[in-house]
Amino acid sequence: MEHRVEKDYLGEKQVPADAYYGIQTVRAQENFPITGYPPHNALIEAFGYVKKSAAMANRDVGSLNKSIASAVIKAAEEVIEGDFNDQFVVDAIQGGAGTSINMNANEVIANRAIEILGYEKGEYDRLSPNTHVNMAQSTNDTFPTAIHIAALNLAKGLEDVLEEVIDTLKKKEKEFDDVIKMGRTHLQDAVPIRLGQEIGAYRRMLERDLARIERALDNLNDINMGATAVGTGLNAEPDYIETVAKYLADLTGLNLRKADDLVDATQNTDAYTELSGSLKVLAINLSKMSNDLRLMSSGPRTGLNEINLPARQPGSSIMPGKVNPVMCEVINQISFQVSGNDQTISLASEAGQLEINVMGPVLVFNLLQSLSVLENGLNVFRRYTLEGMSANVEEAKDMVHKSVGIITAINPHVGYEVASRVAKEALESDRSVKDICIERGILSEEELEEILDPQEMTNPGIAGARFME
Amino acid sequence: MEHRVEKDYLGEKQVPADAYYGIQTVRAQENFPITGYPPHNALIEAFGYVKKSAAMANRDVGSLNKSIASAVIKAAEEVIEGDFNDQFVVDAIQGGAGTSINMNANEVIANRAIEILGYEKGEYDRLSPNTHVNMAQSTNDTFPTAIHIAALNLAKGLEDVLEEVIDTLKKKEKEFDDVIKMGRTHLQDAVPIRLGQEIGAYRRMLERDLARIERALDNLNDINMGATAVGTGLNAEPDYIETVAKYLADLTGLNLRKADDLVDATQNTDAYTELSGSLKVLAINLSKMSNDLRLMSSGPRTGLNEINLPARQPGSSIMPGKVNPVMCEVINQISFQVSGNDQTISLASEAGQLEINVMGPVLVFNLLQSLSVLENGLNVFRRYTLEGMSANVEEAKDMVHKSVGIITAINPHVGYEVASRVAKEALESDRSVKDICIERGILSEEELEEILDPQEMTNPGIAGARFME
Amino acid sequence: MEHRVEKDYLGEKQVPADAYYGIQTVRAQENFPITGYPPHNALIEAFGYVKKSAAMANRDVGSLNKSIASAVIKAAEEVIEGDFNDQFVVDAIQGGAGTSINMNANEVIANRAIEILGYEKGEYDRLSPNTHVNMAQSTNDTFPTAIHIAALNLAKGLEDVLEEVIDTLKKKEKEFDDVIKMGRTHLQDAVPIRLGQEIGAYRRMLERDLARIERALDNLNDINMGATAVGTGLNAEPDYIETVAKYLADLTGLNLRKADDLVDATQNTDAYTELSGSLKVLAINLSKMSNDLRLMSSGPRTGLNEINLPARQPGSSIMPGKVNPVMCEVINQISFQVSGNDQTISLASEAGQLEINVMGPVLVFNLLQSLSVLENGLNVFRRYTLEGMSANVEEAKDMVHKSVGIITAINPHVGYEVASRVAKEALESDRSVKDICIERGILSEEELEEILDPQEMTNPGIAGARFME
Amino acid sequence: MEHRVEKDYLGEKQVPADAYYGIQTVRAQENFPITGYPPHNALIEAFGYVKKSAAMANRDVGSLNKSIASAVIKAAEEVIEGDFNDQFVVDAIQGGAGTSINMNANEVIANRAIEILGYEKGEYDRLSPNTHVNMAQSTNDTFPTAIHIAALNLAKGLEDVLEEVIDTLKKKEKEFDDVIKMGRTHLQDAVPIRLGQEIGAYRRMLERDLARIERALDNLNDINMGATAVGTGLNAEPDYIETVAKYLADLTGLNLRKADDLVDATQNTDAYTELSGSLKVLAINLSKMSNDLRLMSSGPRTGLNEINLPARQPGSSIMPGKVNPVMCEVINQISFQVSGNDQTISLASEAGQLEINVMGPVLVFNLLQSLSVLENGLNVFRRYTLEGMSANVEEAKDMVHKSVGIITAINPHVGYEVASRVAKEALESDRSVKDICIERGILSEEELEEILDPQEMTNPGIAGARFME
Repeated sequence: MEHRVEKDYLGEKQVPADAYYGIQTVRAQENFPITGYPPHNALIEAFGYVKKSAAMANRDVGSLNKSIASAVIKAAEEVIEGDFNDQFVVDAIQGGAGTSINMNANEVIANRAIEILGYEKGEYDRLSPNTHVNMAQSTNDTFPTAIHIAALNLAKGLEDVLEEVIDTLKKKEKEFDDVIKMGRTHLQDAVPIRLGQEIGAYRRMLERDLARIERALDNLNDINMGATAVGTGLNAEPDYIETVAKYLADLTGLNLRKADDLVDATQNTDAYTELSGSLKVLAINLSKMSNDLRLMSSGPRTGLNEINLPARQPGSSIMPGKVNPVMCEVINQISFQVSGNDQTISLASEAGQLEINVMGPVLVFNLLQSLSVLENGLNVFRRYTLEGMSANVEEAKDMVHKSVGIITAINPHVGYEVASRVAKEALESDRSVKDICIERGILSEEELEEILDPQEMTNPGIAGARFME
Repeated sequence: MEHRVEKDYLGEKQVPADAYYGIQTVRAQENFPITGYPPHNALIEAFGYVKKSAAMANRDVGSLNKSIASAVIKAAEEVIEGDFNDQFVVDAIQGGAGTSINMNANEVIANRAIEILGYEKGEYDRLSPNTHVNMAQSTNDTFPTAIHIAALNLAKGLEDVLEEVIDTLKKKEKEFDDVIKMGRTHLQDAVPIRLGQEIGAYRRMLERDLARIERALDNLNDINMGATAVGTGLNAEPDYIETVAKYLADLTGLNLRKADDLVDATQNTDAYTELSGSLKVLAINLSKMSNDLRLMSSGPRTGLNEINLPARQPGSSIMPGKVNPVMCEVINQISFQVSGNDQTISLASEAGQLEINVMGPVLVFNLLQSLSVLENGLNVFRRYTLEGMSANVEEAKDMVHKSVGIITAINPHVGYEVASRVAKEALESDRSVKDICIERGILSEEELEEILDPQEMTNPGIAGARFME
Repeated sequence: MEHRVEKDYLGEKQVPADAYYGIQTVRAQENFPITGYPPHNALIEAFGYVKKSAAMANRDVGSLNKSIASAVIKAAEEVIEGDFNDQFVVDAIQGGAGTSINMNANEVIANRAIEILGYEKGEYDRLSPNTHVNMAQSTNDTFPTAIHIAALNLAKGLEDVLEEVIDTLKKKEKEFDDVIKMGRTHLQDAVPIRLGQEIGAYRRMLERDLARIERALDNLNDINMGATAVGTGLNAEPDYIETVAKYLADLTGLNLRKADDLVDATQNTDAYTELSGSLKVLAINLSKMSNDLRLMSSGPRTGLNEINLPARQPGSSIMPGKVNPVMCEVINQISFQVSGNDQTISLASEAGQLEINVMGPVLVFNLLQSLSVLENGLNVFRRYTLEGMSANVEEAKDMVHKSVGIITAINPHVGYEVASRVAKEALESDRSVKDICIERGILSEEELEEILDPQEMTNPGIAGARFME
Repeated sequence: MEHRVEKDYLGEKQVPADAYYGIQTVRAQENFPITGYPPHNALIEAFGYVKKSAAMANRDVGSLNKSIASAVIKAAEEVIEGDFNDQFVVDAIQGGAGTSINMNANEVIANRAIEILGYEKGEYDRLSPNTHVNMAQSTNDTFPTAIHIAALNLAKGLEDVLEEVIDTLKKKEKEFDDVIKMGRTHLQDAVPIRLGQEIGAYRRMLERDLARIERALDNLNDINMGATAVGTGLNAEPDYIETVAKYLADLTGLNLRKADDLVDATQNTDAYTELSGSLKVLAINLSKMSNDLRLMSSGPRTGLNEINLPARQPGSSIMPGKVNPVMCEVINQISFQVSGNDQTISLASEAGQLEINVMGPVLVFNLLQSLSVLENGLNVFRRYTLEGMSANVEEAKDMVHKSVGIITAINPHVGYEVASRVAKEALESDRSVKDICIERGILSEEELEEILDPQEMTNPGIAGARFME
């Protein structure tokens, strides 16, 4: 393979001749063959924005020569476009607090800018990855800033799909408003409820999730560009610091703003743990909802069979005709993945020491994955399951009528103790609550007709209340 | 032991004659000898409020006879006062979604109310735990409501102590504003920072924690009294539902309000997971800060020895004179406990099924414990460590001067590559950056004096910038 | 309150006059008012063994005066008996790597021994907590050793109850060997299985758990007495080190042995994380089994209703006649608690630094709690649920016959594609597989009779294989 | 794009004309665009073994026509070789308990076998993915079996590298046997220790890890081929079941054996959680060791600076000359990743229901990733850090001499109380322990010379013991 030789203060290395990355990226490849996964595209794009904004700000404050600035800006734009994604070859999990990916970005942009200036890749005396592309920057400010941008951009997709899910649930809530079914607590027959009420409860839960995620995201708008090495801003001119934040906000269209305290913003990672925590709550909620749907659609003949989920694929390689709730199952698995990712993120966050947290790479790998898989999963879940689910209206109603749980409505009329005796007899003799009440002269058929109306039981108040007077 | 015999639809049981609890509590004791820990006092108090408010509301809407209501209210007040804490004998971890603790409360209040009415404990035909004390209630609304109240009340203590910690840090931030020390990234010498800046970063982090916890707590103000069994409000009159929420808010002084959707509020537990998640973020942050303090106070002779923590106890049973950072260590341990509790809470939350989550007892056990241990731990940590910590000003400054990291300030003057060569030579020859720069004629002593001023390095900008023109 | 004044190198403190503990315990009480929980009794007992053995060994090697040794031994025996449990007043979670509980033990034993010698509590010139009771010891060897002993002793109870559970399952496995029921995968109807086969699968899983726990426990037999401060054995005579381990093994009846490498045994905590990990696997397994039992017993009228669990308590404060699977629910909750505890233990273990892990207290608090709650929970679970559960034989069989899943047995006779068409038609037309096969002339009634025999389907082989020739 | 049309009982789909996969894979692609990651190559290879062995066994028992068997076997061999890795296009995280990847394998092998037989892809009447390739199999036995094989194969690599790490540590243990340094507990100066002793403690810890992993792996040798749908073996001839296990063992060279109880082996996943648990313990241990190395190499001028780690890359984009412990940092991150993966695996395992656990895909994704990243990380960690680390012998020794911790050796000679006074004075006056002892006439210079010999303090026994007589 053709190569060029590059050099840093640890010595020389061969770099593939056509590579835009340079010696430090090569060192990182050698050091970190860990997951085989490259950095997330959203993170590469974010680095493009960071480097472009920094070059613009450095140019404005007079630190960076205009022609060099112009070349760097152009190169960074191409990175933003994704033209150099294949040149980001460092592993997603890397030591060094992100120095490798920052240098990968610096090198790719430097070499591309060098080309734009009309020179050969590797001629760093023309334009240096550190001195020019990384001017007034440190990994310790560019990497967190890039993480924030990447997370905010990915989160937009997740928020959009969450909104769509909520809309779909609203539609189903209305569609199922009249579907009476048995409510169950402890998986044991309880009292009637409407399917629409259940769907509405999921919807409201997800509305809180959306609000929670939005709140958590706001912290990410605080960026620490200008913090340089430890947050003190050494080597970064105050004007530059103000300017770079404004450019970043403009270019990305995000509500980015300079953090009030750059030392704090450089070393602390609670913005990530909060965001991941809110994703975990969403994941837990989705898993619960998914479990419910799987329960309610269990059967078809030996389960609850209250609802039907659209068939998406043959369920079995051996059992003909079997159709499984595969979209729900993938939601559960995504939930577990996101919880596991939160564990990794929490551990990484706690491992910060003094002026920075060096565990950024594993943290961002997991955080961006959580955002992506949730968006991806919810998208297909909504489209392939929620949209098309239907109710087995008659079967659901029949179960209510045959249940004993409806006895609860009788309590206010006869007291808990009498009702208990009726319930016990019904269960032991396998008969209906109604028959026993009539037989024992506890209530009249007319009264029971009204008291035991399942529809009425699904709203507040005492069913058949007028009989109480 | 003297006993009375009580009866329910599963049969009879002996109850100690002087016990205020009854048969269902006795069943629970038999069923759940798990942790040996009773319910948290804050939860017992909260049940007192729930039962008192329910009795007042039931009385107001005409469901509950005034003299019975009055006795129940009086008994509940005594529970709030803590007079019957020893009668809450069910285990903190119990099956049944909290039915046992709800019945424990119902029975204690019923028996005490029966006494108030002038009868003997156990005469439930006078006043029944289920029919009267639990009127228009279910475990599924009283237990979540009681958890909310208990958590909100405990959280007030945590918020107070967090505010005190923040105030103490503000004081120390000012006190240490001039203390120059080495900043470290990757535990390797980086560039100078002021101790006050570091303390300020902790302070801001904790301010976010406080705000985060406050936001999370607001969800708990939504209570589901009136939801009864599954959230539909069966057997609860609409007037009662409105009234009980108002009484609860009044009596507790909390911003409690009826949840918009009682079905949602009955089955979903994301308010707990969010709160626990925010406590976990706080815990992670405290652990990081505590780790930093332990690092900075390491030594005294073979560690960093930049700060001193007040001696709280002899550190060793064998090593004389040893003093350990025991208060920091307890903060780390509390952090781990809270993270473990969050794990339990998350698992419990995900296990909700259909109309309720039956895992409430283990959830509340862990949630209230997290709130308590954080409050308790921060209280002593602040008082015994933060208040009294001091800086080793001279030692800290000496380390800065002997470090190589200060070379960074030279970058803007000579470029990253030249600076790298100087750094390398300094490290290899064990000499100072300054000497080498002078010897090599890179910068003059006068220039270096200004560029390498540690104080200047701790603020944004290029140190010795005037030499650049 | 009456008090005496004690003194250490940090100053003086008042100690309650009748307290057996001393100044360092008082300092710990002041420093660590965290959980309100005292140390586990099993840990106190273990410290008794440690101190007794150390005194015997020190006496034997001539380091400890015989009359002092004799008093210390006597006092330690009383601690083993539990006579001084109320004198162990340090909090379960404490800073200082266990120094406080070790000193609590040293002080209680010293003061009791001083009494035995005929002097007054606090006269440490007669017999000193550090010099005599703690002779040749450090918290860093006594505390880990005590944890090992406490864990091994508690584990015996857990192993016993696990064996009983396994025996009970064996019995039920036999009892349910003929109970044909629907097997379900994805909660969807699959093919028939026998209830005894399902119970057998639980049994084998728990047998592996028992073996796994036993393997994990063996590591705990390695104890580090004699390691003193950092594992090098400074101040501990080689003869003493050998002797103390032997005494400890003799006195406790455990297979304790001196660790091969005391430095390793002092700083590393993987024995705990492995044990906790094996408890977590058990917990996960129990939760799965418990979930299954709750599913199978769901209903009674609107669920699967294949099995009955013994009624243990009225299930609801509002719904008469409701009986819930409360014992299963407590098992789930214990599972979550143990998983959360494992999280805490893992975090604590990872926080070890250099020569010791200072997070021992929170680690042991969680480890012993896990052992206790599993033992306690399994004990009642076995007795109150597993022993008495019964099958609804007819209902279970009926569900098999009405299912479509039995179609799978037809595959080998007609191919997957034909079988799929039959399955589809059966589901869409709500008819039986058998009817359609006959109607379509796919197989004869006689053939179907044999092929669709549920009993035969629960064993390996092709049902109705003779028709294939 | 060219395509062919395929059909199943849910309808028709277009399949790319040159694809070896078929309709069910296409459905899976549509359903599960989740992570963007394909299945692990080790899993694809394992499916090759499973399908080859099944075809051989089915042929042997006469169920599968020889020419079809031969084509299937040939195709499966090509899958084993990795020739069709690009045809495994289903997402790593998928619903359906692995049906999609099993069908992906069935389809690829069927279409390749069809070609081998001289027909066109898609002509399933010649050779069917379900009827022939999947003969006597279900996803529920092939997928777990493939997971076991993949995990066992990957684990071999991990075990090898762990052994190499242990060997390297043995070498360093010897190399550093004489390096005296300060032992630290609580990060506070304790008593001397040798660097070789510390390295030895890491080595023994990792030896236990290796043994633990090996034990955990043994469970994976139990495979459930022949279990078919729910473990009962429906449609699988007993001879086939025995034969397929033998072929699998032969072909893979692993110690595979038919599980004693196929129902158990089909539904329970504790073999995975145990293995993952043992990886988590390894991860925790590695993180602790890595933290220690980072601490000991901290500095170079303002940290402990006891050891040097080889420079692997410039540590900073802004700070010249900075070299960071990047290989240690990647080990920490891998540790957090593995812990997070264990969380996901545990959640997935707990979610098993009745006859199978549908969460297999997310489980295997995380399990195989944990095995891979540990192997990859340890490989570079050993080569680039452990091999080349060196000690700063003089600096380490100097720190011991200036410490106060050595006072501990004086205890046995003068008692803990006197020693405490000396220690206190030394610390307060910033003088040496030795000087104070001499000045106060506590011990003679000659005695102190011997007692305070650091080398002697690193072995069991009382330093300077002869002075005691």
